[in-house]
Amino acid sequence: MGRWEPGARERLVMAAVDLFTEQGYDATTVAQIAERAGVTKSTFFRHFPDKRELLVAGQETLSGLLAEGITEAPTDATPLEAVAAGLRRASTAMGPLNRELAPRLKAAVAASTELQERDALKTVSLAAAMTKALTTRGIPDPTAALASELGVLAFKRGYAAWSEADPTSNLADHALAALNELRAASASLG
Amino acid sequence: MGRWEPGARERLVMAAVDLFTEQGYDATTVAQIAERAGVTKSTFFRHFPDKRELLVAGQETLSGLLAEGITEAPTDATPLEAVAAGLRRASTAMGPLNRELAPRLKAAVAASTELQERDALKTVSLAAAMTKALTTRGIPDPTAALASELGVLAFKRGYAAWSEADPTSNLADHALAALNELRAASASLG
Repeated sequence: MGRWEPGARERLVMAAVDLFTEQGYDATTVAQIAERAGVTKSTFFRHFPDKRELLVAGQETLSGLLAEGITEAPTDATPLEAVAAGLRRASTAMGPLNRELAPRLKAAVAASTELQERDALKTVSLAAAMTKALTTRGIPDPTAALASELGVLAFKRGYAAWSEADPTSNLADHALAALNELRAASASLG
Repeated sequence: MGRWEPGARERLVMAAVDLFTEQGYDATTVAQIAERAGVTKSTFFRHFPDKRELLVAGQETLSGLLAEGITEAPTDATPLEAVAAGLRRASTAMGPLNRELAPRLKAAVAASTELQERDALKTVSLAAAMTKALTTRGIPDPTAALASELGVLAFKRGYAAWSEADPTSNLADHALAALNELRAASASLG
């Protein structure tokens, strides 16, 4: 299996995350990101309108895929089966870039309150997108909110496990295992 | 029942939240907040080091109370009974200021991405504080994470219900009702 070769877009994301970790989000300029990635500033702007968008672009895709998977689940799927369908759909969007990025992004977020706030909003947005898709399926309010919280937790836990696991393993398998584990845990809440 | 009379600290918080709603968080200065609250800038600085702290001060208190209630719950309490004890403890810190503030804060957050990010981080911090306290009680990892997500959801839902309910009603009652509702919903996840 050959080493995965990132394109300009992927190199820009990795360069940005590394620079955010080293010197902070505020202090990092588009020029520095482009230089580290070995591309021109105009290449940066062909891919992203600004450095903020570079971070949130992936999030909107992810929310969309989670919602799509939930919407297209079979009519007779239970709330958690619909969430599982969302996790499977979203996992298809996560390739080698995301796997390589995971530990770097974690370090960048740990180093910056601003990125922690952004990351937290991402979590809340993913839950909101899933809740909306579940509600549209006719799942009543407290159940939909709870199922989507389980889905977000499962995605995060699965993603963390995947980034430390055998590189040939599949994100969907890790996320679904995490969802099953959470479902089992819900029986022992008391 | 006489009308509740806020002190300088409370007036500063309300003035700030209103100004954030009207003109945005970034555009609001400490001088404007003090003027709107009818106090001097030095009074502002006796209460808060800066405008950011004005927003996060309450959050640390809240995290601490949630964790305290969980820690001091009876040894044989189930995970959700410990969470309920945390919600009861945290509710004691919420007085008329919080009730008056709720709809204004909601409007300010809706109007500002920066405040949405801060609010989202608050949610994540509350969950982290509860998870830590539950883990210290010996509750294993996925159960502790799940129980604290339910606790945060219950607190938010209870708070929203309280701010729209009879002013003599009790936040703890609303939060515990929301927790019970979520526990019931967990049986229908599938």
